[in-house]
Amino acid sequence: MLADKLTKLLKHELKDIAHSTRPADLVHFGQDWTRFYTPNPSVIFYPDNTEQVQHIMRVAYENDQAVVPSGGRTGYSAGAVATDGEWVISLVRLNQIGDFNAVNQTVQVGAGVITEQLQIFAEEQGLMYPVDFASAGSSHIGGNIATNAGGIKVLRYGLTRDYVMGLTVVMADGELLHLNKGLVKNATGPDLRHLMIGSEGILGIIVAAEMKLIKPPPAQMVMLLSLGSLAAVMQTFENAQRRLTLSSFEFFSDRALKRVMAHRSLDNPFDDVHPFYVLLEFDEDEDAAMAVFEDGLEAGEITDGIIAQSLDQAEQLWQYREGISESIAEFTPYKNDISVTIDQVTDFMQRLDTLLVKEYPDFETIWFGHIGDGNLHLNILKPDKLPVADFKQQCETVNDHVYGLIRDLGGSISAEHGVGLLKKPYLSYSKSAAEIKLLKAIKNSFDSKGILNSGKVID
Amino acid sequence: MLADKLTKLLKHELKDIAHSTRPADLVHFGQDWTRFYTPNPSVIFYPDNTEQVQHIMRVAYENDQAVVPSGGRTGYSAGAVATDGEWVISLVRLNQIGDFNAVNQTVQVGAGVITEQLQIFAEEQGLMYPVDFASAGSSHIGGNIATNAGGIKVLRYGLTRDYVMGLTVVMADGELLHLNKGLVKNATGPDLRHLMIGSEGILGIIVAAEMKLIKPPPAQMVMLLSLGSLAAVMQTFENAQRRLTLSSFEFFSDRALKRVMAHRSLDNPFDDVHPFYVLLEFDEDEDAAMAVFEDGLEAGEITDGIIAQSLDQAEQLWQYREGISESIAEFTPYKNDISVTIDQVTDFMQRLDTLLVKEYPDFETIWFGHIGDGNLHLNILKPDKLPVADFKQQCETVNDHVYGLIRDLGGSISAEHGVGLLKKPYLSYSKSAAEIKLLKAIKNSFDSKGILNSGKVID
Ligand SMILES: Cc1cc2nc3c(=O)[nH]c(=O)nc-3n(C[C@H](O)[C@H](O)[C@H](O)COP(=O)(O)OP(=O)(O)OC[C@H]3O[C@@H](n4cnc5c(N)ncnc54)[C@H](O)[C@@H]3O)c2cc1C
Ligand SMILES: Cc1cc2nc3c(=O)[nH]c(=O)nc-3n(C[C@H](O)[C@H](O)[C@H](O)COP(=O)(O)OP(=O)(O)OC[C@H]3O[C@@H](n4cnc5c(N)ncnc54)[C@H](O)[C@@H]3O)c2cc1C
Repeated sequence: MLADKLTKLLKHELKDIAHSTRPADLVHFGQDWTRFYTPNPSVIFYPDNTEQVQHIMRVAYENDQAVVPSGGRTGYSAGAVATDGEWVISLVRLNQIGDFNAVNQTVQVGAGVITEQLQIFAEEQGLMYPVDFASAGSSHIGGNIATNAGGIKVLRYGLTRDYVMGLTVVMADGELLHLNKGLVKNATGPDLRHLMIGSEGILGIIVAAEMKLIKPPPAQMVMLLSLGSLAAVMQTFENAQRRLTLSSFEFFSDRALKRVMAHRSLDNPFDDVHPFYVLLEFDEDEDAAMAVFEDGLEAGEITDGIIAQSLDQAEQLWQYREGISESIAEFTPYKNDISVTIDQVTDFMQRLDTLLVKEYPDFETIWFGHIGDGNLHLNILKPDKLPVADFKQQCETVNDHVYGLIRDLGGSISAEHGVGLLKKPYLSYSKSAAEIKLLKAIKNSFDSKGILNSGKVID
Repeated sequence: MLADKLTKLLKHELKDIAHSTRPADLVHFGQDWTRFYTPNPSVIFYPDNTEQVQHIMRVAYENDQAVVPSGGRTGYSAGAVATDGEWVISLVRLNQIGDFNAVNQTVQVGAGVITEQLQIFAEEQGLMYPVDFASAGSSHIGGNIATNAGGIKVLRYGLTRDYVMGLTVVMADGELLHLNKGLVKNATGPDLRHLMIGSEGILGIIVAAEMKLIKPPPAQMVMLLSLGSLAAVMQTFENAQRRLTLSSFEFFSDRALKRVMAHRSLDNPFDDVHPFYVLLEFDEDEDAAMAVFEDGLEAGEITDGIIAQSLDQAEQLWQYREGISESIAEFTPYKNDISVTIDQVTDFMQRLDTLLVKEYPDFETIWFGHIGDGNLHLNILKPDKLPVADFKQQCETVNDHVYGLIRDLGGSISAEHGVGLLKKPYLSYSKSAAEIKLLKAIKNSFDSKGILNSGKVID
């Protein structure tokens, strides 16, 4: 759209809708946590309500104008970046928590409600919203739904999908959809709500949702274990799974630990250096926890361990895991968020490790992940002097190896971060040509003009 | 297709695939549990494997031939009926349970595996497949997935959807899709697996699935309560929900009880007649159960009650609920399988009751349902002498009232049975024009020739 056309629209048709064209805002709202793209949207809208979102979309539709739905922009796949004159529609003002229904245990939320805001609200009702991760303080529920966000408690509580009882969506042409109005059961044909979940803004703009809350579990206990080998990780998982009621089973490497300690000025929780660590959260059961620990020690799998003796100490232990992403952000990490089925994890990690040593001899690689779900985060840190573009290119040559391995194992090239712009070239490693063709046809049914987050996920 | 064309195909191109054109088979496989349509398919295929399903579909596609995917035909919405020369593809021979993976707790099943067969298999592994209902002995997993079947334990364990880790699907043109290969996490765009679940055969033929099994709960206890009013049903649900860990909370009317007693020659479990009953299953806790009972008694909501003292007695109590559908089958029941949000159930039932007394003065209506999910089954029995067609027509005039009420409450005209042929005319009571338009466009993307279960769900 020509600049003066936009100026005119902002002065007239769109003048009632809060917006900004300040360069700082364009940069700020034009990017997410990936750092490989130059933000360049033409305007940022901050609609105050659903009607305003519909209005913006009607005008965009008429003008064949590309838009980018924008949540907390904590995404890691450049789903919310705007590089090419798009209109960014930030849902940041749709941040009201609405009616709570105690019988249904559901609550109405605007798309812009912060994940943590919903967690706190749930707690205030004596309930729990169990989807949780390190970006919960800034990601939006709308963004979580659009990416079907997972996190550190999927093992026990599932994904964002499992908590979405209803969705209100603005379509490309401004039409409004109410998808499943909080019903537990609704067998009236294919469920568009479930198609919308995880659709990364290419099918519609989520403006509101009805979310399910659940009873909180009994008191939790946190344990940090050090391990001698990758094989020990899965062994320990299986033992822990059998003896404990696990909420989390998180894995990280010693390099990851070192980065967090440096970034947050934390002490090493152990006296010695160990190659790998796992952090467990589970329903309080000291005896069972000790049994897992002692079995592992005896088998030579576990090398050391700490059980948190207070909530404070539990939080402290969690820091070693939760601080990882943040601690490496300054190194422009190239992130691979990959998954295989749980039984394949050890084999996969071992093959990957061999591959990494061979293919990335000069790069620092940081591993961590939600092992209990088969999900690994593999981060490659940019060496200080290497230009970003060169770094990205070098990472991409290795992708073919990593993703080839994933394809062979039937795994996913994006376990929870989404495809966005960053992983789009690799979609065919996880989806067949027939599936991609169907996705394109579906996209076309929802958005024939291709204005909704165009160029993301699929072409 | 002309009869001699079909004869030729069956003699040549399709000769290796087991099939039947015997009139008795055409009738048997041309209908489900609805009794309002005259079965009239042209041939029944019994493919032995995926390749044969693909082969049939390739030939059907070339010849613009309509096909009906057929499971256990226990459906109540005429989703699997064939009335117009269709080819029925029965998945009955794809009944193998394949690899079980103890680490992932998943198992590969053919689409034709009987629901109960999977339940028993799970038990043999010390695990549980928790989707359960009265037709579990004859419905197929493929049919359960195609309808997203619910049942008597949704309250605790959710719907079939929650157990589908992977799907293998044959498309209209014979192409094969592998949707999510058992991964817990896979954020690679909109999830076609979830679109396929509940799609009633209009998007593809499910040939195999990977299903999740879970740890069984602790010992269960069963309690049958009699209640004085509809309002008491929800009061009792709320009390029970608070004090017990419920697996089931099932409701039925005295008329339903009478039908079961007559059909199965059972004694009345209570000395007196009560208008309503609820059956509860929950984690063993005698004190809490007694507290629910005594509170209700004191409040005048509960009028009598029985706690099963043995597994045998528990099974016996379940008969009063599980036997209902079967006991009324001979009366050609017109079934309304409807839902609202849980908090609306009492209000809904009261308004419905008033409406029924007014609109169906001459018909016997039988109520039961999965109250804890907001799901009611409302059955109208055909008077002996009324011809089926007239009966159906009279029921349909009342539908506008019942469904109008449902639309006003944002409910569903089909909570778990699906839309099929029977509920197709009423879809707009639960879905907006924009949603129906999208469903049609999606249908067209998957099946541009409209040969897959054509005429079902949407036109
Ligand atoms: C430190 C850190 C830790 C993380 N840990 C995890 C983790 O453990 N698990 C996990 O799953 N993710 C994790 N993430 C990734 C990220 O937080 C999630 O993907 C999150 O769901 C994104 O939400 P957001 O609101 O920030 O979305 P954004 O980044 O703003 O957007 C993500 C995508 O959704 C679309 N979108 C946003 N809002 C809407 C809407 N209202 N309607 C339609 N489309 C919309 C965007 O266009 C984009 O394609 C982490 C990120 C960080 C920075
Ligand atoms: C006594 C009784 C009690 C019942 N109770 C319940 C209950 O509590 N909860 C509940 O949800 N349902 C219940 N039902 C309904 C029915 O059992 C379910 O809908 C069941 O899931 C149907 O499975 P089926 O294999 O019999 O499917 P069918 O009736 O054969 O088919 C149902 C639909 O799925 C399609 N289909 C079947 N197989 C495939 C396949 N492989 N690929 C693609 N499409 C396919 C058909 O074309 C049709 O549209 C009950 C039925 C009876 C008779």
